[in-house]
Amino acid sequence: MTHFDPESQGDVAELAPEDGEEGVIRPEFVADVADAVAAEDPDEVRRLAGELHEADLATLIENLPSDSRPKLIELMGRDFDFAALTEVDSNIRDQIFEELQTRTVAEGMSELEPDDALVLLEDFNRKEQSEILEAMPAIERVALQRSLEYPENSAGRLMQTTLVTAPPFWTAGQMIDFLRDAPEEDLPESFFEIFVVDPAHRLLGTVFLDQLLRVNAQAELGNILDTDRRRIDVDEDREDVARLFQRYNLISAPVVDRAERLVGVVTIDDVVDVIREEADEEIKALGGVSPSEELSDSIWWTAKSRFLWLFVNLITAFIASSVLGIFQNQLQKMVALAVLAPIVASQGGNAATQTMTVVVRALATRQLTKLNTWRVIGREVFVGGLNGAIFGIITGVGALFWFGLPGLGIVIAFAMVTNLLAGALGGILIPLALHRLRIDPAVSSGAFVTTVTDCVGYGSFLTFATLWFGLR
Amino acid sequence: MTHFDPESQGDVAELAPEDGEEGVIRPEFVADVADAVAAEDPDEVRRLAGELHEADLATLIENLPSDSRPKLIELMGRDFDFAALTEVDSNIRDQIFEELQTRTVAEGMSELEPDDALVLLEDFNRKEQSEILEAMPAIERVALQRSLEYPENSAGRLMQTTLVTAPPFWTAGQMIDFLRDAPEEDLPESFFEIFVVDPAHRLLGTVFLDQLLRVNAQAELGNILDTDRRRIDVDEDREDVARLFQRYNLISAPVVDRAERLVGVVTIDDVVDVIREEADEEIKALGGVSPSEELSDSIWWTAKSRFLWLFVNLITAFIASSVLGIFQNQLQKMVALAVLAPIVASQGGNAATQTMTVVVRALATRQLTKLNTWRVIGREVFVGGLNGAIFGIITGVGALFWFGLPGLGIVIAFAMVTNLLAGALGGILIPLALHRLRIDPAVSSGAFVTTVTDCVGYGSFLTFATLWFGLR
Repeated sequence: MTHFDPESQGDVAELAPEDGEEGVIRPEFVADVADAVAAEDPDEVRRLAGELHEADLATLIENLPSDSRPKLIELMGRDFDFAALTEVDSNIRDQIFEELQTRTVAEGMSELEPDDALVLLEDFNRKEQSEILEAMPAIERVALQRSLEYPENSAGRLMQTTLVTAPPFWTAGQMIDFLRDAPEEDLPESFFEIFVVDPAHRLLGTVFLDQLLRVNAQAELGNILDTDRRRIDVDEDREDVARLFQRYNLISAPVVDRAERLVGVVTIDDVVDVIREEADEEIKALGGVSPSEELSDSIWWTAKSRFLWLFVNLITAFIASSVLGIFQNQLQKMVALAVLAPIVASQGGNAATQTMTVVVRALATRQLTKLNTWRVIGREVFVGGLNGAIFGIITGVGALFWFGLPGLGIVIAFAMVTNLLAGALGGILIPLALHRLRIDPAVSSGAFVTTVTDCVGYGSFLTFATLWFGLR
Repeated sequence: MTHFDPESQGDVAELAPEDGEEGVIRPEFVADVADAVAAEDPDEVRRLAGELHEADLATLIENLPSDSRPKLIELMGRDFDFAALTEVDSNIRDQIFEELQTRTVAEGMSELEPDDALVLLEDFNRKEQSEILEAMPAIERVALQRSLEYPENSAGRLMQTTLVTAPPFWTAGQMIDFLRDAPEEDLPESFFEIFVVDPAHRLLGTVFLDQLLRVNAQAELGNILDTDRRRIDVDEDREDVARLFQRYNLISAPVVDRAERLVGVVTIDDVVDVIREEADEEIKALGGVSPSEELSDSIWWTAKSRFLWLFVNLITAFIASSVLGIFQNQLQKMVALAVLAPIVASQGGNAATQTMTVVVRALATRQLTKLNTWRVIGREVFVGGLNGAIFGIITGVGALFWFGLPGLGIVIAFAMVTNLLAGALGGILIPLALHRLRIDPAVSSGAFVTTVTDCVGYGSFLTFATLWFGLR
């Protein structure tokens, strides 16, 4: 077999093979599908791609030539699972949607769970959204319209709205009978708990299915329900929701509106995506990359999005160099200073980046609190001073042997201590200050911190040298 | 109320308050508990801390003075939930365990789910583990001993081993009767699915509880089971497990041994911790910080763990400066070169870090595959050249105005293009090469990449200047 084998996908080894090189999808398989699409052979396309898991179908789509992508969807018709599009890189998704007819999109979306449909719908502008919604059956349309009213990135957008609810006076036996007799379309595709509500649809508590099955058939739901569930406000930011899930190891949490009425449920599989996206954004921010940058972005867009960060850095580099500019006479008289100054700046920058990374992390995970801020500041300054002293000695000895000037070793040693102390302070105080000002410290700390260590590094080294050697 | 109110913990706003300043725990509450512990008043301690969620209890413990921590556990006795210790910072946990008696630890651990007990047990050395296991009841001991035989970081350590299994010929009605009549201790604390196995305990498929409740009581499990579950090998690395869960949006996955026998189940709440830890490690690695560094680490340990990375950087800084050293004559003749050279190096370093961040991310998420590597390399080089040209012009104009030498502007412009191209190549090829060599690119790329941009930055700028101005 040269393609995905649905039976073997359960085998992790194939998905993430030992040699770490093979992708999850084979080029030959992509080529076969592309050929079938080019030949406009719907049966062959269905045979190849019809049984794929949505995640694998998404990978396939991403790897097809761009004009084959919408064609594949049209050829597969009703057999195409639109859920795959939620897994596709957003640029590729946009490109596909441009080619597809509104009717095809509306039909495909009606088949999805509302939370998946919402992810796709968010890609369109207001006008397009209305057109697609118009073309959908009434039930799906109303549910989606309601979800769109919640703020972006809120729990309301994240939650599932198809729930199983019951009154507290029902018995476990009645509940089971109800579930057995309910028409398939009245129940969610999958569910793990029953929400017990009062007549005003206010949440009284939940009964997990395993609990329902353990108890006597005569037990009333009102007596076996778990009231101690953490509730989420429908307007709550999804990052706060993710933090709540992580802190309390939740599997799911009911979502209520301002009147305490049950409106949905957030489950952990939705939250996993939020956790992953948050981590992704933090890593990119620390590396000076836009959180929305994707591998599929065009060259122009990528260059433009990286430009701003580089421009800020250019300004800070000029500021740092202007410190060198002040000491031009000294540099000319003793050129070894020009050679050694970057070492002091670089070592301070790296030590400060370590501190900054720890602090940004601790702020993101809420581990840095009022209770331990002073202790952490003290620790960082002490570590900076200690490593500064050690690296001062090492660098001093290195400079002494390189240039044969004992004074140069002493001067660079003191500059190193000074700069690592400055780096420790900058590395902690700058992210803390930005956090207080409600600026994401992951995005903005780096530029400020290295400016501090560059300027203090150059400035201290050249000032000490000026004094020691009596340069003017 | 001056302390945690269990009723209000469901309110996300209180846990992550608007001003971003208040911690999740109030200093006054910590002080009250510390006082009660100091007064050795078990009733007061239980009143204050007895109803806390394990995550809040962990936060409380972390914020208590260190000698109060084991005392709190002893005072609370059987009311202390050892699950809280799984949430406590590992240094603090080690310190607590040193003070507690083996018997207390063994009793506390017997109360836990096996996967939680395993997390705690992994903190001890072989000898201590045996002592604790000896002091535990036989059933818990045997289960833990079996888990300890699986490799560290394997699915076997992550999985839960208490499962509900059934033969395929049972009907839904029989299954429900079985669950109703089973003694509480024979069932897992919570479960979402029934595993259908053959007489050799090989997995045939699973029946989710909602499915069990939907079908007719006479339906046989063998006819309603879902055979299409992705199975995990018990020796599989937990990071691969996490990737599988994320890719296929899994809620749980059965774990099988080499003979295809069902041995456990991994659920998504265990995987969330793996995802979070992985992201944490990647962020720290990119910042030059040890993945195991925690805020509670001592000054000495922290300084030592950061030393190695800084030492590697010091060596690379000396290498970069040695490039400057080659051009000492030229620097002396034209000191402006010494002032401007760091700008070229810094801009290249930042552009390369952007590329490196994107590449390290794409490798971690398996988005960079054989199929798109060349396209991404091409894109990065093009972006590097484009931004290099733009920043070359900006920097050139800046240098011209600063020093009034048109030649200097031209020289720095060409050096900038050269270095941003070198940075793009280094930023992508170095992580790719490290990945092939099975070295974590997040940990090691940074030092190599900035060495490239420092050396190429200084070298190209000073070479071009030497040629243009005829310096010797």
